[in-house]
Amino acid sequence: MRSHDNVPADFIASATLSIDTQGEGFTEFTREARNFLAKAEAGSGILFAFVRHTSASLLIQENADPDVRTDLKTALRRLAPENAGWVHDTEGPDDMPAHVRTMLTGVSLQVPVIDGKLALGTWQGLYLAEHRARPHRREIVLQFLGSRRT
Amino acid sequence: MRSHDNVPADFIASATLSIDTQGEGFTEFTREARNFLAKAEAGSGILFAFVRHTSASLLIQENADPDVRTDLKTALRRLAPENAGWVHDTEGPDDMPAHVRTMLTGVSLQVPVIDGKLALGTWQGLYLAEHRARPHRREIVLQFLGSRRT
Amino acid sequence: MRSHDNVPADFIASATLSIDTQGEGFTEFTREARNFLAKAEAGSGILFAFVRHTSASLLIQENADPDVRTDLKTALRRLAPENAGWVHDTEGPDDMPAHVRTMLTGVSLQVPVIDGKLALGTWQGLYLAEHRARPHRREIVLQFLGSRRT
Repeated sequence: MRSHDNVPADFIASATLSIDTQGEGFTEFTREARNFLAKAEAGSGILFAFVRHTSASLLIQENADPDVRTDLKTALRRLAPENAGWVHDTEGPDDMPAHVRTMLTGVSLQVPVIDGKLALGTWQGLYLAEHRARPHRREIVLQFLGSRRT
Repeated sequence: MRSHDNVPADFIASATLSIDTQGEGFTEFTREARNFLAKAEAGSGILFAFVRHTSASLLIQENADPDVRTDLKTALRRLAPENAGWVHDTEGPDDMPAHVRTMLTGVSLQVPVIDGKLALGTWQGLYLAEHRARPHRREIVLQFLGSRRT
Repeated sequence: MRSHDNVPADFIASATLSIDTQGEGFTEFTREARNFLAKAEAGSGILFAFVRHTSASLLIQENADPDVRTDLKTALRRLAPENAGWVHDTEGPDDMPAHVRTMLTGVSLQVPVIDGKLALGTWQGLYLAEHRARPHRREIVLQFLGSRRT
């Protein structure tokens, strides 16, 4: 186990990010998260992200080969298909699958921040997953908790 | 990106909430979380919730149409069915499916708190998901980390 | 609701833990997390864990009967099978299923810490889930945010 330096929990910075999705699929927001940390003058601590919806979710996945996202979309469609006898269908056939896909992937993320940088692995990117068929405007609350950049 | 005011990370408040479930299904605890924040005199920061079990989980889902929860239950039953040749069945046929459903949905939540209020979306509620067939008493640890209400 | 004492958010300790996996399966790291808290002189607060990969994940599950992990592995294989017509297969047939299983289980954990101890339930353990067929070295960032032990 390799220890990093202890830091004081100085402050919490918060911001709300709006993303317009193109309908079902993934939108990366790693760059926006980095901009948020830079603007907040973040040192070391933790980044939190939270999406304020029940038919869109957040996840960390490979940002190299776009085929991975294609397959992740296929996987979610198979796990939570349309026309599967859902009771709740007032908003259309894509509505209840969107809730199930959100349940399976979750609405929040946390990522360590070391010396102002996201401690992501080489292939990890932050994604908003839109589970509805049509475009939507989605709100993500970003928060940094930690030390001030020195 | 719309920034909110920075706040100091003043303190951490913690409490343990017990919920008696009625067997398989969802119990909302948004109100209890709000009461906890009020009592803790929470300003801005983050609410954390953690359920201390391996056959019950926490999730954030729509709290408007109860049909959504009916369908979520159906989805979890299909994804992790009983009588699927599980090796672990000493506690009954509902035991291993409960572990799988817990794995897929997770045992913790985090929600931003802005000016003493949960920054939930319009339709989001906090739920305890009971995955065992019979009623159980479940313990949830609630924590607030952030500033004191001013 | 039973309240615990408020504590100051004194500091954040961080460390990187490397685990060599044996290929597909679960490796418990509860003991390593406890050692980290002891070394950090943690009081009360929150433990965060984050795995820096897209084909391995973190989860909290039963650490008593090993049959549970056998069945969890079976469940993940059924939910995200090999040879399911994935587009992304440059790294072999186990690669895309590993991404899907990671998406379904998540790359981070948070656990309350009360008086220096993880507030886990009786049967809960922290696990690294390796989703690739072959052994890999995986990095987990551990962080404690809270008060200093008194």
